[in-house]
Amino acid sequence: MTINITTQTKEYNIVIDTLEKMTLQKVAIITNPTVSGLHINYLTSKLQAQEMYIITLPDGEEYKTFQSVNYALDRLFDAKLDRNSMIIAFGGGVIGDMSGFIASIFLRGIDFIQIPTTLLAMVDSSVGGKTGINNKYGKNLIGAFWQPNAVYIDTKFLSTLPKREFNAGMAEVIKMAVMFDRVFFENLADDKLTIEQIIRNSIEIKAEVVNQDEKEKGIRSVLNYGHTFGHVIENLTNYSTYLHGEAVAIGMVIANKLAVKLGYLDEYEEKEILKLLQKYDLPTYYEIDDVEEFYQHFFADKKTLNNTIKFIIPHGIGNYKILQNVDKDVILEVLNQFKRDKNANL
Amino acid sequence: MTINITTQTKEYNIVIDTLEKMTLQKVAIITNPTVSGLHINYLTSKLQAQEMYIITLPDGEEYKTFQSVNYALDRLFDAKLDRNSMIIAFGGGVIGDMSGFIASIFLRGIDFIQIPTTLLAMVDSSVGGKTGINNKYGKNLIGAFWQPNAVYIDTKFLSTLPKREFNAGMAEVIKMAVMFDRVFFENLADDKLTIEQIIRNSIEIKAEVVNQDEKEKGIRSVLNYGHTFGHVIENLTNYSTYLHGEAVAIGMVIANKLAVKLGYLDEYEEKEILKLLQKYDLPTYYEIDDVEEFYQHFFADKKTLNNTIKFIIPHGIGNYKILQNVDKDVILEVLNQFKRDKNANL
Repeated sequence: MTINITTQTKEYNIVIDTLEKMTLQKVAIITNPTVSGLHINYLTSKLQAQEMYIITLPDGEEYKTFQSVNYALDRLFDAKLDRNSMIIAFGGGVIGDMSGFIASIFLRGIDFIQIPTTLLAMVDSSVGGKTGINNKYGKNLIGAFWQPNAVYIDTKFLSTLPKREFNAGMAEVIKMAVMFDRVFFENLADDKLTIEQIIRNSIEIKAEVVNQDEKEKGIRSVLNYGHTFGHVIENLTNYSTYLHGEAVAIGMVIANKLAVKLGYLDEYEEKEILKLLQKYDLPTYYEIDDVEEFYQHFFADKKTLNNTIKFIIPHGIGNYKILQNVDKDVILEVLNQFKRDKNANL
Repeated sequence: MTINITTQTKEYNIVIDTLEKMTLQKVAIITNPTVSGLHINYLTSKLQAQEMYIITLPDGEEYKTFQSVNYALDRLFDAKLDRNSMIIAFGGGVIGDMSGFIASIFLRGIDFIQIPTTLLAMVDSSVGGKTGINNKYGKNLIGAFWQPNAVYIDTKFLSTLPKREFNAGMAEVIKMAVMFDRVFFENLADDKLTIEQIIRNSIEIKAEVVNQDEKEKGIRSVLNYGHTFGHVIENLTNYSTYLHGEAVAIGMVIANKLAVKLGYLDEYEEKEILKLLQKYDLPTYYEIDDVEEFYQHFFADKKTLNNTIKFIIPHGIGNYKILQNVDKDVILEVLNQFKRDKNANL
């Protein structure tokens, strides 16, 4: 099945199906050793290209850096790719984000295709054109909006995905259900959906959001539910303790506490969300060392405008609420519920 | 006076006038020590900002690198600029190209204003949204199309511009006249224009080209007249012997030889162009060491598609011709006229 995305700069399709044969002129596949080891033969068997190059970048969020980007760019120049060439991002969110960024700045921008191999990349990061890298100041702080020419989702790749990574992808699925679609949430809770249906539901939500607001001036920020807190946790743990989706899961739990505190979510609903996260073995607690330090980390986030932080919380399940100008005291009270040496109230 | 640019992504004005007062929230001025030393007080006297940061990058084409970009990005993060902040590019082409690229990738893109201080930047590089940096593979090979929010041209800055740099800017002016406007060319040759008129004429040409073809899929490539050869010369001399405009001047002379050889330009017109370049003390000869090596350098250029090089030549003065698939032999014959130890036929 096919879902269409139409942004100011590009129109393209997301195809959920067994990978079809592609004919290309000159192509560079950017991937990592794990994905390459498992699936490169499958991919290349589908590709007919005059020239094909495979660029392998180290696996993991800690390598989503300028250094990796520079290495890949040099390989593209060595291979003499030109403005008519194609980049294929073949991997999870890290590979997708970096490849998109590389495509956006190589020769001032060339075409690229996303072929995500993780659930997280399939349901979220491969769709919508956000690209970027991390630096010492935080996540995805350098990057571009650069839409792919197509996204091909073949669930075959999920067969080799470690359970932990699959579950991390489910965190983003749950995020979309909680924000936008109560029925989807209930179907997830009741185990009523195939993985294809889960992916399709998620992408339909994401596509609608991106079509309305590519550059995240408004509704697209709702997709950051769980991320404001999650990014701080990732940063404080050097991106090495939690997978992105895991940090987002904890972030949703914290955001839910804020929602409950402000009366937007009742405790029963909070528990329903918690249960769904736990069903996928996602972490739902993080011990905060220093609440003030945690709070200060918000101000490094690129979404922080004029030193005011936007918090995205559920307004019941299936609806969102964007909070501006929340009192620091209120946030600190919520964070204190996660403070080390305190009994957490989960 | 004001000239309008309308691209797919942005509409903005180029204002040629004494700099007016600007009110901004948070702004970072990116400049170099020379411009800063001479003019920063003038600029800041025109700026009303809640927070203002000045980032100084080393002066010169050889510093148009990833390293400089990274340094500036770190300063922007230190200063906690956000998505509502503004970058001001205050300098010549190098500062403009780097600042635009920085603006394009900082937090996935923020606004920026061009305030060019050299003639070259005023008539050409500040207009049209091409940004980028050099690397060991060549010039401007990494970058983005990222339009400024405005370009403010105040000819006051030209009073401190070294004569050699002024002349290098005139090379780009002459380029536009030769390609698009015979009357403009004649007025230049007859010294009939004020500097404001020269700038205005050039920008009007550039604006029309950019409005038609922002991403250089067609007519915008005509502005590369002199650049295909010029870039090779810059590269072979490590960007240290010639200013960009000087290399372009030599490049135009070589392109003209090709045009004469193929019958698109007669020798009298060739001489007219040569005379105008010499009037501004621009170099018009370069001794090529190794013709084959020179030729191979074309293939590193980002405009080289499928290993075919596009040559832009004058078709008479005031008209252009885009050549595809020129025989290598023909090019080598032209290059041989510039070969070391050969009598040049200029």
